[in-house]
Amino acid sequence: MPPLPIPTLQILDLLATAVFAISGSLVAAGARQTMVTFAFFAVATGVGGGTVRDLFIGAPVFWIANPVPLVVCLGAALVVWCTPRGWWAERALEWFDAIGICAYGVYGAAKALEYGVPALPSAVMGVITACLGGIFRDVLAGVPSIVIRPEIYVTAVAAGSGSFVILLSLGVPAAIAAMVAFALAFVVRALAITRGLALPHYER
Amino acid sequence: MPPLPIPTLQILDLLATAVFAISGSLVAAGARQTMVTFAFFAVATGVGGGTVRDLFIGAPVFWIANPVPLVVCLGAALVVWCTPRGWWAERALEWFDAIGICAYGVYGAAKALEYGVPALPSAVMGVITACLGGIFRDVLAGVPSIVIRPEIYVTAVAAGSGSFVILLSLGVPAAIAAMVAFALAFVVRALAITRGLALPHYER
Amino acid sequence: MPPLPIPTLQILDLLATAVFAISGSLVAAGARQTMVTFAFFAVATGVGGGTVRDLFIGAPVFWIANPVPLVVCLGAALVVWCTPRGWWAERALEWFDAIGICAYGVYGAAKALEYGVPALPSAVMGVITACLGGIFRDVLAGVPSIVIRPEIYVTAVAAGSGSFVILLSLGVPAAIAAMVAFALAFVVRALAITRGLALPHYER
Repeated sequence: MPPLPIPTLQILDLLATAVFAISGSLVAAGARQTMVTFAFFAVATGVGGGTVRDLFIGAPVFWIANPVPLVVCLGAALVVWCTPRGWWAERALEWFDAIGICAYGVYGAAKALEYGVPALPSAVMGVITACLGGIFRDVLAGVPSIVIRPEIYVTAVAAGSGSFVILLSLGVPAAIAAMVAFALAFVVRALAITRGLALPHYER
Repeated sequence: MPPLPIPTLQILDLLATAVFAISGSLVAAGARQTMVTFAFFAVATGVGGGTVRDLFIGAPVFWIANPVPLVVCLGAALVVWCTPRGWWAERALEWFDAIGICAYGVYGAAKALEYGVPALPSAVMGVITACLGGIFRDVLAGVPSIVIRPEIYVTAVAAGSGSFVILLSLGVPAAIAAMVAFALAFVVRALAITRGLALPHYER
Repeated sequence: MPPLPIPTLQILDLLATAVFAISGSLVAAGARQTMVTFAFFAVATGVGGGTVRDLFIGAPVFWIANPVPLVVCLGAALVVWCTPRGWWAERALEWFDAIGICAYGVYGAAKALEYGVPALPSAVMGVITACLGGIFRDVLAGVPSIVIRPEIYVTAVAAGSGSFVILLSLGVPAAIAAMVAFALAFVVRALAITRGLALPHYER
């Protein structure tokens, strides 16, 4: 695979980690928990998905050799701890989360391809990277997981990681494929947020 | 270890993956979910146990390098999505599931032994391969897990993977050991299905 | 890192495994489960935390090559199965558990450092080693996890693994650092058990 614009990806990666860590910390805040629980939820949500991706594709776990993502998660927990909960507008967070999952979906697929994973499992790795942190957060908090909510969420990520893999296999340069795939995922997710776009339910 | 009849094992392996993926998809169908949730439950249930086994024994995750199991899972989700739920007779599924867990128990132990894992942990790997996918399905769906139901289920798998490891260590050829162990596990599980065979409960 | 007093650590390690396995088995006993469920909870609680640590730091999973911890877990399940539940005084178990988590916190951080992991992730590995087995037990049993209880628990482990890493980086010999860190963690946890020491809650 031709190299992606790495600095852009790394910034998106850390931004997504921070957004997920904040969403985990806010669950702890909602339950009136302690600082240690804030940190635990921030780390599980922030790096959970990428950790599973790295284990599956045989890569060294990304936050073990390089502690920056861990510092970002613990910093996010501290910031949420020190601020009133009302400051964190739910709508704003939803949009940051949309940026985060779309970036993670493309980034996760790109990293899997770099490790020689075939196209279909690579697209799945994008979905795992973007969605598993939120699932860990929900299971630990005992609330219904994002995967069983009707609104389009996982689907937007799958559209992004899937189209990225397809565009690359059609010979599109990586940077362009990444931007197109990110934009597609983001538009799908934005329609879900603003218009309630949802998938049909099983009715048989 | 002398080689197992690989083609037979591979067919059993894919059959078990398909059965587990169907049982995962049916949970999504019961909750009137969307196609994406069907796919998610199909993959988690279908390849979950073998994935954990591979991570534990240090093998490459089996569906990363070879996408066939993933295609089987996604295909199973699509088939369930396209058919009325009434078509899937619970009794028939229970018997397919019985074949699946017994095959997976022996196959998981055999793969662990091939990777140089000692006898006892190899038998445990058989249990993990067969049972963890169903546990993921149940935890994600928020229903009581198979491990805490009274009916004999995990025990049948343990009888199969344990007897396989013991027979091999007694010098029985691998193909015969696999068939005897599979038959033993299947008879135990069949008695649980038809006669309600159950283990004693703790009463102290 | 200079070598730790390995035999002492290994004994503490197996003691902690046994205590965790007993606490897992007692959950199965409380639910009037079968011997197989006892074994399942004993193994998940006893070796769960160390397993995740080993996967994260890229070490071979400790109970795969050497079956002793598995034998300890299965033995603990059998002992609990054969004894009346009233024999297991909750208070005594709480103290054994305190020894277990403090030993595991230091041991987990030490093992991570040995594998070349930087200081901050190594301290986190100590927390994961000590706390994840109990989290698995609670999630499988469907009860609120230790991480969201107010009493100081995870914090004591973090104090131990964090101070161990800091002392080593200040040049303190490993054996002394391990003893001081263990003692600090144990004192914090003991104050939580005897005086109800707790962290402040989020109140904003």
